[in-house]
Amino acid sequence: MPILIDIRKLTIIGKLIQHGAKNVTESLSTMADIQADIQIKSLSFVEPSDIPREIGEGTYYHTNIRLTEAPYGVFLMTFGDRTAHEIAGHMTGQPVENETLNHMHESALQEMCNILTSGFIDGIANTLGTTINMETPELEHSDAEKIADKTLSHIQTDSLSIVLDSVVDLRDRDTEFQLRVFLVPDPGAFVNLIDKLDVEEIREMESVTMAHEGDRAF
Amino acid sequence: MPILIDIRKLTIIGKLIQHGAKNVTESLSTMADIQADIQIKSLSFVEPSDIPREIGEGTYYHTNIRLTEAPYGVFLMTFGDRTAHEIAGHMTGQPVENETLNHMHESALQEMCNILTSGFIDGIANTLGTTINMETPELEHSDAEKIADKTLSHIQTDSLSIVLDSVVDLRDRDTEFQLRVFLVPDPGAFVNLIDKLDVEEIREMESVTMAHEGDRAF
Repeated sequence: MPILIDIRKLTIIGKLIQHGAKNVTESLSTMADIQADIQIKSLSFVEPSDIPREIGEGTYYHTNIRLTEAPYGVFLMTFGDRTAHEIAGHMTGQPVENETLNHMHESALQEMCNILTSGFIDGIANTLGTTINMETPELEHSDAEKIADKTLSHIQTDSLSIVLDSVVDLRDRDTEFQLRVFLVPDPGAFVNLIDKLDVEEIREMESVTMAHEGDRAF
Repeated sequence: MPILIDIRKLTIIGKLIQHGAKNVTESLSTMADIQADIQIKSLSFVEPSDIPREIGEGTYYHTNIRLTEAPYGVFLMTFGDRTAHEIAGHMTGQPVENETLNHMHESALQEMCNILTSGFIDGIANTLGTTINMETPELEHSDAEKIADKTLSHIQTDSLSIVLDSVVDLRDRDTEFQLRVFLVPDPGAFVNLIDKLDVEEIREMESVTMAHEGDRAF
């Protein structure tokens, strides 16, 4: 059965993502005192079966949550070992040695994942005029097939996955973290939410809260 | 009146763009003997009224065509002066001096715009299993508001614009050209075309013609 959306409402998906990223920036500042800019470098749509290929070869750190409210589905974030070591080193002030994370590093990385995940989901929820409850994300380390098997086993094969390549650019130093985010909402619930939104309303909201910030209108 | 599309068919938009970019790569090689990789760095959806802001401040080179067959609408490509000078210098073997293009530079730039535009449109048309006739693009130089006024005056205000940031990366030297592409199809015609396509068919076509190329599944 088709799940229909007005094609002109696709601009709203971009707005949701833009607001999610903006909220991550604020969360990093208030919760971890990290001044950073979050840029969404690319947005694409893939089928869930393509997600392992999108994650890439080799092992990745990943954190995922199931959304227990609309738009339901899964939020999955992946990043490579090098990014993990950079984040852990930056947050603890202790460089990662011998490619091995110590307990402090792991805690810091877990904390960063919590901030990024909840910041992004809350940003989307605010724009939707709702709240989205979620479980606490758990940080794990495995390869793409295992990540996909574990996180997406309950997802309908005909779902849509929104893939975002994001860069967290630390303002006070020449460091960038590269993250990939997969949003796999329940298609029906997602369309219902977007149908309720009006581009003009979002635009007014932006003109109040985001005046003159020059953000890319994703 | 809403123009409805099955949300799970959004993956097809990415495929169309991926195939368009791939065809540009081939056209550059066969028509201009330029070995280059085309990467689509970002895809977003905006309303036509946001296009001037998306183009950016200052003056830009731009070329646009009206599509006289489905999906109708406009194809607009913009790039900055620096990119124009680099392309013209590379194609003629004569560096641009005093920020001024000579006649040869202008011809070369016009030729490059023809190749990029027809390559992209033909790539999309092939994937759609059709041809898309178009006028010859004309190269012009003006600022964002004027570009938008001129090219989009006949576009419905509730159309959807697909915005692509592309990078043409020359293989034999350390040079990249940055281009922005705006595809503003007639929403109804565009949805009709996409509705006729099947993701599985595209996938089979890819597995024959693009095996093991590891392209990003946009």
